[in-house]
Amino acid sequence: MTTDTVPKLASRSVELVGGTVAVTGMAKGSGMIRPDMATMLAYVATDASVPQPLLQALLQRAVDQSFNRITVDGDTSTNDACVLMASGASGVRVESGESADGRRLAAAIAAVCAELAEMIVRDGEGATKLVRLCVESAASEAEAANVAYTVAHSPLVKTALFASDPNWGRILAAVGRAGIDRLDVERIRIWLDDVCIVSAGGRDPGYREQAGKAVMDRPEITIRIDLDRGDVRTEVLTCDLSYDYVKINAEYRS
Amino acid sequence: MTTDTVPKLASRSVELVGGTVAVTGMAKGSGMIRPDMATMLAYVATDASVPQPLLQALLQRAVDQSFNRITVDGDTSTNDACVLMASGASGVRVESGESADGRRLAAAIAAVCAELAEMIVRDGEGATKLVRLCVESAASEAEAANVAYTVAHSPLVKTALFASDPNWGRILAAVGRAGIDRLDVERIRIWLDDVCIVSAGGRDPGYREQAGKAVMDRPEITIRIDLDRGDVRTEVLTCDLSYDYVKINAEYRS
Repeated sequence: MTTDTVPKLASRSVELVGGTVAVTGMAKGSGMIRPDMATMLAYVATDASVPQPLLQALLQRAVDQSFNRITVDGDTSTNDACVLMASGASGVRVESGESADGRRLAAAIAAVCAELAEMIVRDGEGATKLVRLCVESAASEAEAANVAYTVAHSPLVKTALFASDPNWGRILAAVGRAGIDRLDVERIRIWLDDVCIVSAGGRDPGYREQAGKAVMDRPEITIRIDLDRGDVRTEVLTCDLSYDYVKINAEYRS
Repeated sequence: MTTDTVPKLASRSVELVGGTVAVTGMAKGSGMIRPDMATMLAYVATDASVPQPLLQALLQRAVDQSFNRITVDGDTSTNDACVLMASGASGVRVESGESADGRRLAAAIAAVCAELAEMIVRDGEGATKLVRLCVESAASEAEAANVAYTVAHSPLVKTALFASDPNWGRILAAVGRAGIDRLDVERIRIWLDDVCIVSAGGRDPGYREQAGKAVMDRPEITIRIDLDRGDVRTEVLTCDLSYDYVKINAEYRS
């Protein structure tokens, strides 16, 4: 059984020294999505010729910033998989990730993975909105990811997104319970797209709800959270929590 | 604004050496419930006369096993509070938590807190079921709590509970992603009330879905998870995730 509603395909063509190679991928998934490879189904293939260890390294780097940075419901599946194959059919050989060709191929693989990962979240069970959580100026990658996932998994934030409700308090409360050591709430700033909603520990003085509401009505929203603690940045893609998510997962046998 | 649908009151009368004392409490709360004191509103009072440090110790112990072991949606509020007052109006003095009177008073305070905490979960936003998660034979309290909360917060488990669906795979998958070091899935056993649904890494051979379904149809369910790793046990109270949870939190302004 699958709850996917659209096919998920992505492709890039890359000019390398030896010729043109293609990177093409396909994926399925829409619920139980909070990948932690190994655990989704994604297949990416290229007609470049690439030694296995380099292929694995290229895949790992691409997956860490794509499939491993999406969440629909926080439930990690037990059997996700992402496979990268290199047929060599193009006759173009890439030997090193550090060469100009290696970097171009890496960028194409990363782009295909990111596109597929985004398609999965867009097709998230019951999803009506695509939400990009950018956590900036964190002290570490772990801290940035904790904040991003805590906000992304908060049922109160997710239902506010479904309602197009610019509820800055729910977002700030989720940041506050992310378990960050000695978090200084006074330094946190939060934006909905280009609208600053939180600063100095509360509602930004210049914020007008109409502006926040206008952003919330969009089908794609970026929530940017600046922790002012360091220079690490991470992004997590997620979606809202709607009646249909409950329907799909409560009535899937009916 | 409150989404509480019932008043929450609990009381105990305790016979002590010096006379009878009362312990009475009241609480409010139904959403944004995953207390982590300080962060709900609960007031408990007794007419016993108790020195402040002992009163604090009695409260801490009671709260750790009651309000700090419930979750509706995993969203911790920023302003929960539980206050224990001792008026001394009974004229009965309790000086030590280790005395027979101290233990009786402690038990009454714990019982009042547990009853109020349970009332909050029963009145959880949109809740149709009260679910007791008992994690047994864990190696540590932290590990037991991680497993209990991961299952309690899983949207897939919560929607299955709403649907009265004995989906053992969703429960086992949530246990598997709780971040337990070197978890041996083969040793895990899971029961719905008295029905064993999981053993030896999968569906228990003796399990019949009809039996699981019969439990799931009840308004109160105990999910017991035996990790077979140690001798620590913990309990977390939670509820299901229904259409009404989404409605309450998406349409609260309408």
